[in-house]
Amino acid sequence: MSAEGTTPSPRELIEQTLQQIRPLDHEAGAAAAGAMDGKVKPLGSLGQLETLAARLAGIQATTEPHVEAPAVVICAGDHGITATGVSAYPQEVTALMLGGFAAGTAAVGVLAREAGIRLLVADLGVIQAPVIESGQNVVLDRRVRAGTANSLEGPAMTLAQAQQAVAHGVGLADLLIDDGADLIGLGEMGIGNTTAASALTASLLDRDPARVTGPGTGVTGEALTAKIAAVDAVLRRHGDLDDPWQILAAVGGLEIAALTGVVLRCAARRVPVLLDGFVATAAALVAWRIEPRSADAMIAATLSPEPGHAVQLEALGLEPVLRLGMRLGEGSGAALAVPILRSAAAVLRDMGSFADLGLADEKPTA
Amino acid sequence: MSAEGTTPSPRELIEQTLQQIRPLDHEAGAAAAGAMDGKVKPLGSLGQLETLAARLAGIQATTEPHVEAPAVVICAGDHGITATGVSAYPQEVTALMLGGFAAGTAAVGVLAREAGIRLLVADLGVIQAPVIESGQNVVLDRRVRAGTANSLEGPAMTLAQAQQAVAHGVGLADLLIDDGADLIGLGEMGIGNTTAASALTASLLDRDPARVTGPGTGVTGEALTAKIAAVDAVLRRHGDLDDPWQILAAVGGLEIAALTGVVLRCAARRVPVLLDGFVATAAALVAWRIEPRSADAMIAATLSPEPGHAVQLEALGLEPVLRLGMRLGEGSGAALAVPILRSAAAVLRDMGSFADLGLADEKPTA
Repeated sequence: MSAEGTTPSPRELIEQTLQQIRPLDHEAGAAAAGAMDGKVKPLGSLGQLETLAARLAGIQATTEPHVEAPAVVICAGDHGITATGVSAYPQEVTALMLGGFAAGTAAVGVLAREAGIRLLVADLGVIQAPVIESGQNVVLDRRVRAGTANSLEGPAMTLAQAQQAVAHGVGLADLLIDDGADLIGLGEMGIGNTTAASALTASLLDRDPARVTGPGTGVTGEALTAKIAAVDAVLRRHGDLDDPWQILAAVGGLEIAALTGVVLRCAARRVPVLLDGFVATAAALVAWRIEPRSADAMIAATLSPEPGHAVQLEALGLEPVLRLGMRLGEGSGAALAVPILRSAAAVLRDMGSFADLGLADEKPTA
Repeated sequence: MSAEGTTPSPRELIEQTLQQIRPLDHEAGAAAAGAMDGKVKPLGSLGQLETLAARLAGIQATTEPHVEAPAVVICAGDHGITATGVSAYPQEVTALMLGGFAAGTAAVGVLAREAGIRLLVADLGVIQAPVIESGQNVVLDRRVRAGTANSLEGPAMTLAQAQQAVAHGVGLADLLIDDGADLIGLGEMGIGNTTAASALTASLLDRDPARVTGPGTGVTGEALTAKIAAVDAVLRRHGDLDDPWQILAAVGGLEIAALTGVVLRCAARRVPVLLDGFVATAAALVAWRIEPRSADAMIAATLSPEPGHAVQLEALGLEPVLRLGMRLGEGSGAALAVPILRSAAAVLRDMGSFADLGLADEKPTA
């Protein structure tokens, strides 16, 4: 509700969000990097932990960055293109997995519990709304439609539906941030969504589908060749699109659109957004094409073996925190990277400096 | 104290330890891998997290591996070879850093606190015994001698001193394991110890010193050339040694010898031992040369940019968990990897399986 008691439309909410996005606070980032250089250790010897601390500082616009209330938001949706046989699993598995997210027995639930991460789960349009009777996590109803249409036959969704899904993502980010979240990881679930992510990546970055289409849940051999052909056919079906909104509506997914909204709102509110694997990063690519400065709020949690993921991260200029060969999605990579980000902030906050020892001049310059 | 009320000699303690070392429990490892395959996810999609869980199972000889009471043991010692100017820092910094370990303000102290890791600090032979008045951690007195001799001029220590230091490491591991530790990370501090680690690595693996000697705390250009020449001269000074005990005494370090003892005792007691950077891994190499099966208990926490570290890990057949460009030592990489190992065990323990869902047959074979 806005102050006037009227709910802004999806387009108004998105427009407000885009207007609030600012670049990294380079001053805070540089001050944090300087403070890190003054810690009792050889210069740069904590490697990427040091650059992560400075990046958190630049995003949060403070010399005292914090990861005290991390969250992962999981958006789920189904994909009409699964009718073409692009996945090793049937579409019904999406709803089944929502049950696992609610119960806390999915991989991301275990990893989130271990790392003290709040999990928020939202249904953006699973084919059949799941019946979740109880569990550790509720599944929020943010349904836009019952799965996308098959993008081989027409647009996956209308532009208005894409905007509605992005606006839902904005609202999910607000819900977490208003409740104190100071870092948000992206999670997703949707049988068929690596195919949508490949089509998005190829289209947004103008790449050959074969370069950015991979096994997903485990499609190999002839089935992978067919998946690549399907992505190629989707792109030819929709012609030479350039506008990221049009691309999102034509070949994207409901859960991907929502994560795009999460990214944009995090960027607008200076909350670091932790990417996960290939599908979540496709959502980040859409956000970056809509507003390039949104990339300043991103941190890449993990490098997936899915071949398109390295292509995406290179386009966004991001180095992954973890390289463990994880390709599950769900936000599992984001959850596993949270303790490292928390540690980066803790080192900046708690580690002793040469100045503390009265040794400001003994720092070697090597 | 043994049951008879007599303390075993260092040689007796080491001999007992070596006799207890057994290879990986392949049955438990395979059972854990099978259980991981039955979890609700595409096969292998959690990447290295899956192999780590199976390795923990094989080391601990249980299908329910656990990381509930992790510890990091930091051994410190000084090095006579610093007289040759191989480090960017003076030898006195070693004792200074012990103060930081005691106070909890060193990097490893911060990282250990964040990850719920017990820190144990021992002085194996710092030049001047540090005066630690108070702090979060005590520094145990396990002094063998006040720093090693300069290995350019003679053996760094006698064989008896090397055995005494290894036996102290055995005792430190016992202290932690008797107190419940179920995973032990290696930490070290000693100005000049990357030079000793390079000499050990070159000698143990029969490699060119230039291939396994790097910047350490920050030695570059001509100083690095001089450091490589020093390692080369050390190796020529001691001739063609092959026995790992002789190599350890001739060119090693007191803190390195103690960590060798920690590795051997962890292997004997089936406690996973988490390697840190280049120096800690040199200690692991000594253990592996003394008893090859000790490598079965090792997990590599991190890959250091120090050029010899990849050479060491390849010899040991280990893949690092983290690749963050960390080269501080202290056990900082080991501490940072602990949450990932804890998560690997948690996934195996808590994640739901297809069998739980009555879907044992729906697991795709991809």
